[in-house]
Amino acid sequence: MSDNVIWHSHPVDQKMRAEQKSQTPLVIWFTGLSASGKSTIAGALEQILTQQGYHTYLLDGDNVRHSLCKDLGFSNDDRKENIRRVGEVARIGVDAGLIILAAFISPFRSDRRIVRDILPNGQFVEVFVDTPLNICKQRDPKGLYEKAERGEIKLFTGIDSPYEAPQAPEVHIDAGALSVSQSVNQLLEYLHRVDVLKAGYAPVSISA
Amino acid sequence: MSDNVIWHSHPVDQKMRAEQKSQTPLVIWFTGLSASGKSTIAGALEQILTQQGYHTYLLDGDNVRHSLCKDLGFSNDDRKENIRRVGEVARIGVDAGLIILAAFISPFRSDRRIVRDILPNGQFVEVFVDTPLNICKQRDPKGLYEKAERGEIKLFTGIDSPYEAPQAPEVHIDAGALSVSQSVNQLLEYLHRVDVLKAGYAPVSISA
Repeated sequence: MSDNVIWHSHPVDQKMRAEQKSQTPLVIWFTGLSASGKSTIAGALEQILTQQGYHTYLLDGDNVRHSLCKDLGFSNDDRKENIRRVGEVARIGVDAGLIILAAFISPFRSDRRIVRDILPNGQFVEVFVDTPLNICKQRDPKGLYEKAERGEIKLFTGIDSPYEAPQAPEVHIDAGALSVSQSVNQLLEYLHRVDVLKAGYAPVSISA
Repeated sequence: MSDNVIWHSHPVDQKMRAEQKSQTPLVIWFTGLSASGKSTIAGALEQILTQQGYHTYLLDGDNVRHSLCKDLGFSNDDRKENIRRVGEVARIGVDAGLIILAAFISPFRSDRRIVRDILPNGQFVEVFVDTPLNICKQRDPKGLYEKAERGEIKLFTGIDSPYEAPQAPEVHIDAGALSVSQSVNQLLEYLHRVDVLKAGYAPVSISA
């Protein structure tokens, strides 16, 4: 940069930030029961996208429940406020030009609708990670279903708090039947079809 | 990408996101009175950084008070919670590999300390935009000081709510005496000195 450039004020906006990253910013929102595979699938997709040069960020319970939302519990009101704040952070991420992957149980339709509504049209992709409750209970990696059934955790989604399945998600993953690789490929195919992935894509195989 | 690549799970982390962007993520936190010039200087610096290829995001009252923090007012407790949430969003931005510019009055030392403490060491740069109260009152672009002095706005920083000046900010801008260009050049010089700006820099001149 040469000396004494005259700089005309022109605020940096979403368009400039997205063009700099050569991508279409959007939120890919994974909803489903605890242990349905949301974070695993989102994490695997993030790796593929990053490897292909996209600028991503993964938001999940781990990085908000102990920080941004540490004042909140699991009552209906607190769940609603949790998802509202996460939605606002996702919107900021999209404004920053990023592809945001968000993995939250987000059991209530009205809360997911709030997030969809604060995002520009077409920049919210709802992904239903549809794993049957009995499979989630069998997996139970953190022993949470067992605790909920013993009454040691209250208001646990699928046990004593409802899960409202999406009625028209952009992507519906039959995650009880599909492997992680197959789930990620279904997502890559979708993102390619809607022109978020500009290069062609070839199926990938993921191992843990 | 070839067909059926075997993908080994390796979560995307801050280091990978920062390397992808060829930059050192950090938070540049502007504190100072209302009308001190925080947002103007931050916005001008963001333009320069973006033009030089850095990936930035500007957080300010406008994009949080009406969204993430719309449930909060201006009591001491609410100001504290406002800054706490903004700090968490800034931390997420740094985790995403970005250079975050944050422009908030943030009048209390303890609140700014909370933000500093949640960030990795060296990734919080406190910038004191030090414009004398009488100059801020003369500028008063939104007529807020006038309203505060008439008692129409309560708990206005500098009028009936205190501003605790930073005692050891990384950058202290004498913004009552310096132009926007001079202030931005002071910041560029600092960022260059601490190796955040890798390329050399030449002074810039900014016009509105």
